[in-house]
Order: sequence, then C-alpha cells, then structure tokens
Amino acid sequence: MSSFRDDGALALEWVASYLERLRDFPVLAQVEPGDIRARLPVSPPETAEPFEAVLRDLEEVLLPGVTHWQSPRFFAYFATTASEPGVLAELLIAGLNQVGVLWRTSPALQELEEVTLDWLAQLLGLPPGFHGHLEDTASTGTLSALAVARALQPDRRVVLCSEHAHSAADKAARLLELELRKVPVDESFRLRPDAMDLEDACAVVATIGTTGAAAVDPIPEIAERCEAAGVWLHVDAAYAGPAAICPELRHHFEGWERADSIGVNPHKWLGTPMDCSALWTRRPDDFRRTFSLVPEFLQSPDDAVNLSEVAIPLGRRFRALKLWAVLRCLGRAGLQERIREHVRLATLFESWVRVEPGWEVVAPRHFSLVCFRREGSNEMNERLLERVNASGEVFISHARLGEKYSLRLAVGNYRTTEDDVRLAWEVLNREAARL
Amino acid sequence: MSSFRDDGALALEWVASYLERLRDFPVLAQVEPGDIRARLPVSPPETAEPFEAVLRDLEEVLLPGVTHWQSPRFFAYFATTASEPGVLAELLIAGLNQVGVLWRTSPALQELEEVTLDWLAQLLGLPPGFHGHLEDTASTGTLSALAVARALQPDRRVVLCSEHAHSAADKAARLLELELRKVPVDESFRLRPDAMDLEDACAVVATIGTTGAAAVDPIPEIAERCEAAGVWLHVDAAYAGPAAICPELRHHFEGWERADSIGVNPHKWLGTPMDCSALWTRRPDDFRRTFSLVPEFLQSPDDAVNLSEVAIPLGRRFRALKLWAVLRCLGRAGLQERIREHVRLATLFESWVRVEPGWEVVAPRHFSLVCFRREGSNEMNERLLERVNASGEVFISHARLGEKYSLRLAVGNYRTTEDDVRLAWEVLNREAARL
Repeated sequence: MSSFRDDGALALEWVASYLERLRDFPVLAQVEPGDIRARLPVSPPETAEPFEAVLRDLEEVLLPGVTHWQSPRFFAYFATTASEPGVLAELLIAGLNQVGVLWRTSPALQELEEVTLDWLAQLLGLPPGFHGHLEDTASTGTLSALAVARALQPDRRVVLCSEHAHSAADKAARLLELELRKVPVDESFRLRPDAMDLEDACAVVATIGTTGAAAVDPIPEIAERCEAAGVWLHVDAAYAGPAAICPELRHHFEGWERADSIGVNPHKWLGTPMDCSALWTRRPDDFRRTFSLVPEFLQSPDDAVNLSEVAIPLGRRFRALKLWAVLRCLGRAGLQERIREHVRLATLFESWVRVEPGWEVVAPRHFSLVCFRREGSNEMNERLLERVNASGEVFISHARLGEKYSLRLAVGNYRTTEDDVRLAWEVLNREAARL
Repeated sequence: MSSFRDDGALALEWVASYLERLRDFPVLAQVEPGDIRARLPVSPPETAEPFEAVLRDLEEVLLPGVTHWQSPRFFAYFATTASEPGVLAELLIAGLNQVGVLWRTSPALQELEEVTLDWLAQLLGLPPGFHGHLEDTASTGTLSALAVARALQPDRRVVLCSEHAHSAADKAARLLELELRKVPVDESFRLRPDAMDLEDACAVVATIGTTGAAAVDPIPEIAERCEAAGVWLHVDAAYAGPAAICPELRHHFEGWERADSIGVNPHKWLGTPMDCSALWTRRPDDFRRTFSLVPEFLQSPDDAVNLSEVAIPLGRRFRALKLWAVLRCLGRAGLQERIREHVRLATLFESWVRVEPGWEVVAPRHFSLVCFRREGSNEMNERLLERVNASGEVFISHARLGEKYSLRLAVGNYRTTEDDVRLAWEVLNREAARL
C-alpha cells in the first residue's frame, strides 16, 4: 500500500492544485479536433509505467483539451459543480468498488440509495409515496419512465412534450418506437395545455426548467389532463429541481407531486460529480413489472427487492455515496445558501442587461439562467458568442427561442462569485463593441 | 483548499486502510434486509456536517452492509478488481468533472476515449476498422447494438442468442420490442449454429465466456451464417474479452473480428473500477444514424463527431481516464501476468476438484471460471452454497447447467493468491462434510 499512499498523495495534490488554478485556464478548450489525439501514443505501453507518468501527461497533454466545467466562469448549458465532498466520495466509491446488482451484492449500496433518495425527496418537498433510485443521466431516466408508460398501454404509441423539451425525449421515443408530438409553447416558452391532443398518448413529458429558457410548463393543468385521460406524466426537472429546496422558489414546482415520475439531476445544481440523476416514481410496481428480470444465476435466498429490477443496466455504481456525502456536508442550509446566491447573481446579471442600451432579455428568468441577446440579427449574436468563447475568459451557450438566437448565461458553479459574473458582462460588452 | 487537502488525506488513508483489511471482513455482507436502513437517520441534516462524519459513518454504519467485491476471496459471479491506479484515476475524474456531450465540452475526454479504445483493441488483437466507445455496462452496450440492428432492418423483429446468453439480451429485446429466440446449446453449453433459424432475424448475440459456464459459442460458424443472411452479429465478451491479451488464449476469440459489434468490460477482468464497458463496432455510421440527434442548443461551429451521437445518454463521464491509467500502469506485460495467474489458479482449483472423490467438474474450463458441484442432489448443492457464503470466509455463486445446479468459482481479483483459492477449497470441503 505504500505506493498507493504515495501515488494517492500526488493525485490528491494534483486535484487540489487544479481547483486552485481554475481561473487560470481558458474555460473552453482552445484546441482543434485531433490536437489531443495527435499528442498521444498510437499504441499502449508494453510494460508498466509509474502513476506519476499518468499525472504528468494529464497536466501536459490532456489539460489543454479540457473544457473546465469546474471553472467559476463556466456559464454554458447548465453549469455544474463537483463539490469537494462529492469529489472525495468518488475516491471512496472507487476504493469500495461496489457493484449493485442484487441486494446481497451490496446491501449498503441499495439501502443508502433508498434512504438518500428519501432525504432528497424531503428536501424538495415531495410528499411521501415517491420511491427513488439513481440513473446515470436524465436521458436514461426519461427513457425508463417512457418505457414504463409504454408497457402500461402498449397500443397507445404517442408521447407529448413541448417544443422546448429536452432532446432526451426525442431519443427515448426513437428507441421505444413511439411517436413524439411536439406541443406549441406560449410567449413564455411554456407548453400550452390547450394544444395537447392526448388521443393515443401513453405519456406526457413536462418540464420544470427547460433546457433553452428554463421555462416552467404549467404542471397543474397538464397533470389534470393526464389524470383525466389516464396518461403517464413524467416531469423533467433535471436542472431546476434543486431550487425546490428553497421555500421561496417552490411555487414553480406546484403540481409536480401529481406526476407519475420525476427526474432531477444532482450532478447539475446539487454539487454532485457527474454522473448522478435521481428518478422518483409513485408507481414502483410498474417499474418493476417493466424491468424486472432476475435470471437463474442471480436467484438468491434473500427476500429483498433489487435495484436492478427497476432500471435498464444490471449493475450500478455506489453513486448514492457521493450524493449522501454532499447532502451531509452541505446540509439543507448550505444547499439553500448556494442556490440563493446563484439566483441572486442571475438576477443581478439580468438587471445589467435590462438597463444597458443595445441588449434585451429574451425570456422570463425564474432560476439561475438568463436568456438575453444583443439587439440585432441572429447572425451577429452567433458571431458574438463565438468571439466570447474564443477569448477563453468565460464560456456561455445559446438557444433558439422563437425566431431569436439567444445567448444563455447559466449560473451554477459553487465557486462563481459576483466578480466572475461581472467579468462575463464585461467580455460580452467588449466583444459586442468590437463586432 | 486546506480542508479539501485535509479531508482528502483522511479519505485516502481510509481507502488504503480498507484495502489492507480486505481479508478481515466477511466477504458477503452478513446483514438482513433493512438493517442498514434502520441505522441511518430518516431525514437529512439541516446544517453542514464535517467530512469526517461521513467517513465515520462509512466505517461504522455502512461497512457491515458492504459485500466486498475488492476482497481476494470474492469468487462469485465474475470477480473484479478496482486496481490502485484505477481507484486514483476516479479521484482525478471527479476533480475534473468533465461532461462529455459535444466534442467541445471536453476534447480531452472524447479523444482520449477514442485513443484508449484503440489501444485496447490492439491489445485484444482486433484488426483495424473497429471504432470503440465506452458505455456504463454491457447491458447498455447490448441494448445499443441491438437498437442499431433493429434500425437497419425494422421489419425483422427477431433476435437470437443461446439459452446461456446474458439476461441483458432479454432486457434489451423487451425494451426494443423484439422477439428473443433462445437457441439450444451443445453438451459444452455452446450455442448450436445448426439450430439457428435466422428467418426474420435482425441480430444474433453470441457470447465468448457465458455467464453461467464461460462457454465459448462457435463464432466462426455463427459469423458465417450471419453474413450470409445479412444479420447483425454482436459478440458479448464482457467477462472473457481481456483474455485475448494473452496469445495462448486468443484462439478462443477466433472469428470475433467478423462481428458487427463487440462488448468487453474493463470493469470486470481489467482492473478498472465500476463502471466501464467497451463497445466496438465496424459500422460506426450505423450507430450514428441510430443515435445521432443534435438539438439546436448543442449546435456548435466545430467540425467533429460527438460521442453523444453513438450512445443513449447525452452526457458521459471521463471514464476513459481510468482505463487509460490502468493500461499505462500495468502495461501489456502486467495485464498478461495477472490474467495468466488467474487462469493458473483456476486450473489448479479444477485439478483439486477432479481428484477429490465426491466432487465433479460440470463444464469445460477455458478461462478463470470453474464450474463444479458435489455429486448428489441439486438441493444439497444449494444448501452447500448457502453455508459456504454464510461463513463469510469466501463468496461463490451458482449456475444451472442443463439439469445440474452447479457451483462457480470465478478467479478475477488482482489480490487473490493461491492461499485464498486453497481456503475456498477447504471451506467447501468442510461445509460439505458437515451437511
């Protein structure tokens, strides 16, 4: 174990130093396709190399090809954080190397996953009766939920979602051979319940916090319609879900307790390293009927339900340990504090956009995402985005909202300060002036 | 960062100490369903707790509920190892928190994944032309491959595999609404190509190293039939694949280079922490046509293919980093050495079974798995298995081979020595005598 301890100390120091240097790197990797590949050997080594060689090449060869999701100046897509307890928990997870298949292959994994998902449901204000488990990503969660919906009503081959729903719905529908109908949105980019045609539908995917604009679909009306028609309702709150921890933001989640399934990503706005996506359902028996398949070699004398019976993969990592570590090391108060600070920073940025001539806010802001643009053509905004990201100073992304090419500033990194947001605004104005 | 460094040193020491204590624990967790849950608080903490509290509860509350996959005396299912460089790489992966969606979201992730899969293909002796990427598990890999096969021939709704194929094929067929036809096996538990009816088939799943007996399906004949009928061939070598690194074992893999897709799990016999499953295909364009779906918010100016276009989840972890670390820190020679030692230990165990009266070997041994049983009833063998595992001294599993309830001893942990295998044999004989 001496080399493990020595190598481990080096690895730990590398990560600590990396986290200290985050503001020194260009946020978006400044390389061309193929650059990193060209710097790597074409064949594997014949004999063992020391771990230090891995660390050296990580620093010298790979780091220029890293887009820094951990950077406080990462404002693209939905910004994320691998918090410090979450990072260290991954070391523990790997050391234990649990493989959750049957309950007996890791009782700790299975029961901690159940308990931690209960904890998170309580933090989010979900009522009792929701059973949770972890998936890798919300893509898999949406796929799983729609598979259950299809299994319940195999002759109803239609799924509805808004035009602004995540592409995971498209991919799931393709895999499940369902027809996906995109429902038009209102002027705030919310699904229009009056435009839903539920004939032949087995499921609706509604979103709290859409990818483009963080819009909130009108869940109560949608739930009402789904219940009346006997249609499965999946609520995708992958990004915005954690905001429900703050009482002042919980009104956005009204009605989600009526959903059949709900997805929330701790790996987005809840400090948990990639990957960790929570999926709750009020109908665990339907999940089990859809996915349970315990072959002979896995028959065991235990009287326990196994997490592999509610999901697509047979084996799972001990993901619950990192979520548990984050919930404990931050606590309800710590999570609220970070989410409120992000909402404050987004509100502040939005206020700057509103008062500055030549800029416009494009969508209502509910959480920590601001959709905005330079007044003028879409092409000009596209060029502006490219210039901003090419600077490496900050990284932002875009969405097409109606006819408008819109810029998106998403606050979501625990290390982001007001100065980082101010820098983003300065870079945007500087590059806009140069265009 | 000072608390990160201090907490990290504690976490690292915990893992080092855990790995040193592996022989002190009962291999199979000796708890009842609900025991771990009952020892955990029903609600999350209101305020932050120190990371040490997480470590303390890991040790005191969770550890009794851990089944020790890292133990050198874990011989159940297929034994695995999270090797030391693999464990430390997980710390690096979490620190970097890359999210592979588009190439630009992590050029290093994407290009290292491509290069590392090329390296592994070379180690396995696969010819050029195979394109690899990583999935979480072989379940997802099989599902993906069959989804591509279905997309190519949407009117052919049948998949064939042997009775001994992994249940992942059943689950994938259910999700894809394909009819799975189980083909009978010969006396060595190998798929019988003469019994394959390829009418209406879009795919065949053949296995090198079946779950039950590590049988090797006759790939050349199966490939021949698939090629003639225009049917996709997926080769599942999840467990046995790494054996192809050893020239003396490569004959078992004859013909797999004719497959359309191949799955191998580095998280099984290749020292890589859970999860890490390699999937290669000779038909990457068909994968892309099946899965590619780049929504507006992910349009980018880069001229690069994105790994999210060949897989179900949109985002992926930087899994390649741990596989790369393992391949480098062991090298071809180190990997061969470990695989050969495991095959030697299994051969030795098999020789003990053969000479000891009252025991029988149930299936031919090709790799590091021995299928054996006590002469007598299936019920007696089942009771024997329960007693052995209840002892906590070693953990083995079972398979039903033909009519016989068979015990399985799978060597696959890098820390397993001859003494550990000998202990397994002693415990088996002791418990058999007591029955």
